[in-house]
Amino acid sequence: MKRIVTFGEVMMRLTTPGHQRFTQAKGFEATFGGGEANVSMSLAQFGLEAAHITRFPDNELGQAAIQFLKTNNVSTDHIVKGGDRLGLYFLETGSSVRPGKIIYDRANSAFAGVEPEMIDWEKVLDGASWFHWTGISPAISAGAAACCKAALEVAYAKGITVSGDVNYRKNLWQYGKSAQEVMPDLIAKSDVLVTGVRDAAEILNIYPEAGADNEEISVYNKIIERFPNVKKIVNTTRNSISATHNKLSGNLYDGKQFLKTREYEINPIVDRIGGGDAFLAGLIYGMHELEGDQEALDFGVAAAVLKHTIEGDVNLARVEEVQDILAGDTSGRIKR
Amino acid sequence: MKRIVTFGEVMMRLTTPGHQRFTQAKGFEATFGGGEANVSMSLAQFGLEAAHITRFPDNELGQAAIQFLKTNNVSTDHIVKGGDRLGLYFLETGSSVRPGKIIYDRANSAFAGVEPEMIDWEKVLDGASWFHWTGISPAISAGAAACCKAALEVAYAKGITVSGDVNYRKNLWQYGKSAQEVMPDLIAKSDVLVTGVRDAAEILNIYPEAGADNEEISVYNKIIERFPNVKKIVNTTRNSISATHNKLSGNLYDGKQFLKTREYEINPIVDRIGGGDAFLAGLIYGMHELEGDQEALDFGVAAAVLKHTIEGDVNLARVEEVQDILAGDTSGRIKR
Amino acid sequence: MKRIVTFGEVMMRLTTPGHQRFTQAKGFEATFGGGEANVSMSLAQFGLEAAHITRFPDNELGQAAIQFLKTNNVSTDHIVKGGDRLGLYFLETGSSVRPGKIIYDRANSAFAGVEPEMIDWEKVLDGASWFHWTGISPAISAGAAACCKAALEVAYAKGITVSGDVNYRKNLWQYGKSAQEVMPDLIAKSDVLVTGVRDAAEILNIYPEAGADNEEISVYNKIIERFPNVKKIVNTTRNSISATHNKLSGNLYDGKQFLKTREYEINPIVDRIGGGDAFLAGLIYGMHELEGDQEALDFGVAAAVLKHTIEGDVNLARVEEVQDILAGDTSGRIKR
Amino acid sequence: MKRIVTFGEVMMRLTTPGHQRFTQAKGFEATFGGGEANVSMSLAQFGLEAAHITRFPDNELGQAAIQFLKTNNVSTDHIVKGGDRLGLYFLETGSSVRPGKIIYDRANSAFAGVEPEMIDWEKVLDGASWFHWTGISPAISAGAAACCKAALEVAYAKGITVSGDVNYRKNLWQYGKSAQEVMPDLIAKSDVLVTGVRDAAEILNIYPEAGADNEEISVYNKIIERFPNVKKIVNTTRNSISATHNKLSGNLYDGKQFLKTREYEINPIVDRIGGGDAFLAGLIYGMHELEGDQEALDFGVAAAVLKHTIEGDVNLARVEEVQDILAGDTSGRIKR
Amino acid sequence: MKRIVTFGEVMMRLTTPGHQRFTQAKGFEATFGGGEANVSMSLAQFGLEAAHITRFPDNELGQAAIQFLKTNNVSTDHIVKGGDRLGLYFLETGSSVRPGKIIYDRANSAFAGVEPEMIDWEKVLDGASWFHWTGISPAISAGAAACCKAALEVAYAKGITVSGDVNYRKNLWQYGKSAQEVMPDLIAKSDVLVTGVRDAAEILNIYPEAGADNEEISVYNKIIERFPNVKKIVNTTRNSISATHNKLSGNLYDGKQFLKTREYEINPIVDRIGGGDAFLAGLIYGMHELEGDQEALDFGVAAAVLKHTIEGDVNLARVEEVQDILAGDTSGRIKR
Amino acid sequence: MKRIVTFGEVMMRLTTPGHQRFTQAKGFEATFGGGEANVSMSLAQFGLEAAHITRFPDNELGQAAIQFLKTNNVSTDHIVKGGDRLGLYFLETGSSVRPGKIIYDRANSAFAGVEPEMIDWEKVLDGASWFHWTGISPAISAGAAACCKAALEVAYAKGITVSGDVNYRKNLWQYGKSAQEVMPDLIAKSDVLVTGVRDAAEILNIYPEAGADNEEISVYNKIIERFPNVKKIVNTTRNSISATHNKLSGNLYDGKQFLKTREYEINPIVDRIGGGDAFLAGLIYGMHELEGDQEALDFGVAAAVLKHTIEGDVNLARVEEVQDILAGDTSGRIKR
Repeated sequence: MKRIVTFGEVMMRLTTPGHQRFTQAKGFEATFGGGEANVSMSLAQFGLEAAHITRFPDNELGQAAIQFLKTNNVSTDHIVKGGDRLGLYFLETGSSVRPGKIIYDRANSAFAGVEPEMIDWEKVLDGASWFHWTGISPAISAGAAACCKAALEVAYAKGITVSGDVNYRKNLWQYGKSAQEVMPDLIAKSDVLVTGVRDAAEILNIYPEAGADNEEISVYNKIIERFPNVKKIVNTTRNSISATHNKLSGNLYDGKQFLKTREYEINPIVDRIGGGDAFLAGLIYGMHELEGDQEALDFGVAAAVLKHTIEGDVNLARVEEVQDILAGDTSGRIKR
Repeated sequence: MKRIVTFGEVMMRLTTPGHQRFTQAKGFEATFGGGEANVSMSLAQFGLEAAHITRFPDNELGQAAIQFLKTNNVSTDHIVKGGDRLGLYFLETGSSVRPGKIIYDRANSAFAGVEPEMIDWEKVLDGASWFHWTGISPAISAGAAACCKAALEVAYAKGITVSGDVNYRKNLWQYGKSAQEVMPDLIAKSDVLVTGVRDAAEILNIYPEAGADNEEISVYNKIIERFPNVKKIVNTTRNSISATHNKLSGNLYDGKQFLKTREYEINPIVDRIGGGDAFLAGLIYGMHELEGDQEALDFGVAAAVLKHTIEGDVNLARVEEVQDILAGDTSGRIKR
Repeated sequence: MKRIVTFGEVMMRLTTPGHQRFTQAKGFEATFGGGEANVSMSLAQFGLEAAHITRFPDNELGQAAIQFLKTNNVSTDHIVKGGDRLGLYFLETGSSVRPGKIIYDRANSAFAGVEPEMIDWEKVLDGASWFHWTGISPAISAGAAACCKAALEVAYAKGITVSGDVNYRKNLWQYGKSAQEVMPDLIAKSDVLVTGVRDAAEILNIYPEAGADNEEISVYNKIIERFPNVKKIVNTTRNSISATHNKLSGNLYDGKQFLKTREYEINPIVDRIGGGDAFLAGLIYGMHELEGDQEALDFGVAAAVLKHTIEGDVNLARVEEVQDILAGDTSGRIKR
Repeated sequence: MKRIVTFGEVMMRLTTPGHQRFTQAKGFEATFGGGEANVSMSLAQFGLEAAHITRFPDNELGQAAIQFLKTNNVSTDHIVKGGDRLGLYFLETGSSVRPGKIIYDRANSAFAGVEPEMIDWEKVLDGASWFHWTGISPAISAGAAACCKAALEVAYAKGITVSGDVNYRKNLWQYGKSAQEVMPDLIAKSDVLVTGVRDAAEILNIYPEAGADNEEISVYNKIIERFPNVKKIVNTTRNSISATHNKLSGNLYDGKQFLKTREYEINPIVDRIGGGDAFLAGLIYGMHELEGDQEALDFGVAAAVLKHTIEGDVNLARVEEVQDILAGDTSGRIKR
Repeated sequence: MKRIVTFGEVMMRLTTPGHQRFTQAKGFEATFGGGEANVSMSLAQFGLEAAHITRFPDNELGQAAIQFLKTNNVSTDHIVKGGDRLGLYFLETGSSVRPGKIIYDRANSAFAGVEPEMIDWEKVLDGASWFHWTGISPAISAGAAACCKAALEVAYAKGITVSGDVNYRKNLWQYGKSAQEVMPDLIAKSDVLVTGVRDAAEILNIYPEAGADNEEISVYNKIIERFPNVKKIVNTTRNSISATHNKLSGNLYDGKQFLKTREYEINPIVDRIGGGDAFLAGLIYGMHELEGDQEALDFGVAAAVLKHTIEGDVNLARVEEVQDILAGDTSGRIKR
Repeated sequence: MKRIVTFGEVMMRLTTPGHQRFTQAKGFEATFGGGEANVSMSLAQFGLEAAHITRFPDNELGQAAIQFLKTNNVSTDHIVKGGDRLGLYFLETGSSVRPGKIIYDRANSAFAGVEPEMIDWEKVLDGASWFHWTGISPAISAGAAACCKAALEVAYAKGITVSGDVNYRKNLWQYGKSAQEVMPDLIAKSDVLVTGVRDAAEILNIYPEAGADNEEISVYNKIIERFPNVKKIVNTTRNSISATHNKLSGNLYDGKQFLKTREYEINPIVDRIGGGDAFLAGLIYGMHELEGDQEALDFGVAAAVLKHTIEGDVNLARVEEVQDILAGDTSGRIKR
């Protein structure tokens, strides 16, 4: 059975047109996205079965968000309705030396009001092969953190592979608990972890071994030692030359091997948002459909690279398109 | 001295393009509006000095709102900065038998967090000839209600004319107090009241005199009796034939005379929002610049009629344009 | 079980923006529609389960069409992939005395190449309560006609209610058979027929009884006599005052009673396309959910009226919105 | 030989989008138009050969104007290049009681600098059946007036039918001569005159005969008496109910008969500009292709009515479309 | 006499806006193009007389296509009307590593139905200096191939220089004949051939001489030997770094000399389509107006480079602009 | 007191959308700009008090221009109303090797008609810390030159620092005087001069000292010698790789030291216009708020670099954003 379940907030994204700044905009382009749903939608685009769990207000904006997931072939059967408002974020796209800018307006969203009793994880995860969460959800509210924990417990019990993207954003944690208190329990139940040296230090108080040959590996080893359920640690290395020109490669450590991919050049970047989610979706696809970790990692990075050329949060690349990149064709020649 | 001060929330308005429904929209047109600020902006367009007091978040969206007021020539010198978010409302414009639809997203806005100590009304109202408030502000939060009350006390002490638009919306009152508790004190300090028979019954428990010749007048007499500072009660009569075809006239009762205007036909309506604010701005203009109440009332209704032909919340009609309507030219012939 | 299945072509609709003529357009708005799928999508919007059967090319345009159906909550599980191209139609919207104009470009579409063996009607219609077809499909190609016939046979065998919209367009019949040859077999297996006096004459050679009190009824009686499975004949009466101003009412004859609705005024019309499909969807909804034929007919006409105020082929009105119209509120007052 | 030649300024028209006012616009739609060229372009659309003479600056804006004429099938072979700038006009479209507004920015245009020696009228008018001018050209500059006069002399000598649209706009006459001085010589050489009672009074000092049965006819008789070359006087009667709702009919007096047309209702108006030019083009078409003056007049008015439903200055209606209106079909039913 | 005649299909091009994928598009930008007409339009832009021969359906879309050619100053006098539909192609523009994508929808077009008896080549080519065809036309249908052959015979008889762009696309050849059967006869009557080593192998079965110093030249020599009327073989060398970054240079072999140009860097590419047509138009311009083959080749490549910065299929560069590039100014400094 | 006053023309800028050429545009984006007002608006964005002096026509376009300045927080209190038209310029944005193109349409503008008696410089400059002019104003008309001179005299008398951007454009000088006659008097009263070697030669007849170590410094020394009030000479060095890729650095000479900045890479450029004005605004900001000339120069160049990434003439960068660039962060990473 290949069925991936993701859990997290989906926001309406309101983007200023073209290169306009917030104070210039007389309108916004509207789409929807969220780190976990982006993974689901990309996997559905790759042809796998995917379901997303979230909570939306019972109004037309919540309805529009559901329709967006449906359009992208993700199951919305278990989405909870209720609460007051849809979370939003406003985006001003950067260019060259000018960085992009996000203004979040997600406080008191329907998702922030989610509570464990609203979701029957036994049912939701029935038949699932993979569950994916990120560190954003437990940062949003105690209820969202509790839902996340409940999901991980059921997934663990069912033997479902779990991936967690630590993604620590300090200023999100406003409801009275800290990441340092909440995250370790969630990390402990994850099989694949997206994290890096900075996250390890800030959340887990894990620092590189003094005098280590490879400081990065020394940190990852400590993580795996502390959380024995964690089997793989993955992330991307991004070289930001400018807002519109990045270089990207991927890394995977399984406690023994430190795998790396080639570095891709992305210039110009069409839409930077969702690049990391596209990487993870590619990796999960690879772990379902390809032979080894290197193949999965390569697929993840090539998928992430393509995402940067696509408007919106979601990677609309198809498997064949990722394969073309993997096969070395980054020439961009028109397909007829 | 002719200087009008208004107080109230200004929201970003996100409108679906053309005739699109919320679930069809891939973008929104963005503008700003709020019942009280709409009055200020219309008065500034008429050439009077106007200032608006509100609270905006200290981010680019708050900055954009300030710039919108500046563009419309309203003083923003006393606007308070702080709080978390800008209030929003989403608008789907109606057509023919299909009504327009508004989804408010204003809870926990910067304005809802306004507190009396943030505004120095002595300074703000210094040299003002008129102060305008509506029943929306005291419905938003205890703090906003307290600010409103504080403003009215200073205005009363300074002998500034006060207009209040009762505008009762039951579902807005969520913070623990009811309109029935809060509004009477505010009404008591107002000189010109925009209200009608329904508001009087619901908020003030005032009902038509049994057997009265004119039930409406009997209600207004009771209001004036109970609130002796109220000198004039005004409102409009709107005949809604469809979302795009209305007829509009105005009424003013001063305790003795019940003045009425001619009825105007508006077909098609370009933008229905802000019609009442445009009426009040026209009336306030008339009370500053024209001879009598009938003239002011006529000006107010003609202004309101023109507003329906203008995109956005704000009446961008100029005095001469209102005068053309008043002079009977509703033929719409091109001006060269 | 309430599950409606529809069968027919879905085309991409390319509309000139605003009031532009074909020769002015530098771009087209794109959406999707087709008489039968429009019925499915409206029913899904009303909350009923709906599935549409068609054939799309296996390219991104076919994919976009599928996503459009998904967005509108219609099951696409049984859609066939294959063939060369997606059918298209170009639309120039009329205004006032200028009529709208459609240029069809649907020849050799994927749907035209549909063949009976591509669709397993036993499976498709399993658990269905209703099947809907129109006279467009049998006009497109011998294969489409054969599919239609196969569906009707299975539906008849399963006791599924069948509605057929005769919708005779002479110039569509190009593949060697005429409507006069093909349609009678299909009509014979239908329970509810959308047709009128003109269709009856042209396709069935049925003319009003000389000297009949009510010529219309005399025609319908002859149809019912000839096709005893037909239980109800329905249609709308449209009074076209201009391209943007119509009056609409509905009729239903069940062999005994000739039911009529009130006449609605629609001015301005936002989008005329799909009005008849919206009527039928409303009627089918009513026949599933409401008490009697009059209620179903009333619901159908009110639904059709609302459709005229909505962009695109599909009626995005919700049940409550239709109910408001039925309750007599056509004032278009903003809902907050 | 059926070949119509027109002479006059063509301006770029910059229109605010939708219903926006000038101070709201963040952009303008751009097209081209001018009273005389509009006649040519409409005639070319009707299938007659048409050429327009004007002067454009030798830059890309002049080039764009030429391409616009070419697109509309008008010969641009004799257009003069030179001068500094293209004339412009800014347009804010009216709605309901709000009138449209035009800001001209045409002073010092390339056309204003046209001089008689730049145009070889013998060559330009070779083989022409009709020449059309308006009172705008002689108002623009002494050079344009002289060109107009030169054209009329050549046309007169060649026996070409001449139509002149008097179109008196007092504030255009800024170069030192008055319409009263310049126009009589031009009128004297015209066969068909578009004018009315107001123009006759203001330019020709001709007033209704005291006690005349029909004051209008008494004025026209005086015009014909004074200018014996004038054979027909035509104009339209426009009943402006609002900016978006007009009624229109036409009139033609030939010294004996006073012909009238039916009155058409136009609601809503899409674009009011160029309605008069469309009328004249229709009339000229009728005088080339139809039997009598009544037929030509009817065609002219029906053409003008259609123009009001079309964006831009130019009537893009085809002959068959005008004929449909003439045949009484103003129902706006979609053509498939 | 300098008059260039081109023959081939013109399609409507429907492009997704910005960077949108096909499944994201809610609309398409519409323009027109075709390999041969693009050459005509570019030459007309350079000031030469150009005529294009094709077949369009007799509807508004065909009319719009004609108007597009007229706008671009190409003679449409000999265009044939008839057939059912206008050929279309849908374009998704690539970016960075994501390639552009074209979906053709040109089967059964009006052009595919062209037959030799519809075109009087004697008349069409009367006074022409150059005739241009491409390998697309003979691939479309037997009729189009026959027209091509007929044109070449008349051109040959009249001594008109002929250029042919071999442009082999295997999947276009669907009507029963192969390129290998049809093309040699057409190549034999051409003076200037756009082709390369791959085309020569696939269509002509010509392969590089084993052990040749320069394999390319060895192929070209064999072509010239086999088709003695061919005097020059030209093409471009494109280095595709990404969809938005290419390098371009040009080559010309006349049987003796192998001329090359400098290599230009194009970054970013605005619109890749029509680059080859722009090259050929530049070369043809150069062969009419410049001194030698090197000058013509240089002009062709510089023209092609500029095309990549212009929206649409057509090179709207003027001669002076190409000359600036040739003079080495690729700095892009604003011209005032 | 920190209050900057600027004087000069503000034009409406009409830009073709995207990459369209003038002849492709069916509309224009509209904004406002002018070299001197751009400086004011940028300084207001940096938080300093700024006022702009100009003359606008008393119509809605002039009103829109005033509103644009207000929106950008610049005082419009001293703007003169009158004259016939607003100056315009049309812009086609370049890309890669294709240069941008400007068509000016500013002759006979309201500003060209400005006369010294219209502006009370004593009042305007009261309390000012800085006055800025450019060489465009004295080029426009004798009146504008006289206004400039009058302003400089008052500024000099009041001890206000004066910056002048020489910006010599030969073809602007059309009113009978040359830059050689007019500019020296204006330069003589300036403290900070934006100029370079080319301007010095063309306007001041100053050439590099033969055999100088540094030719540039030798020219600047001669300028300072001839105009002893000039204390600093500044400019930028722009390396134009293409229309969308530039490198930029800045220079300042104070008679002793020749300061330089690092060179920044800008790729892609969003909007090239106003880059120089942004530099000067940054420099003036720095001279008001930062420690030394090097800091001011660095701030100016970083500000100019950011401007290239912002749409429109005006640098909407905030101080913190410039500081981020100065701190070396040109990575464009999204700010959340």
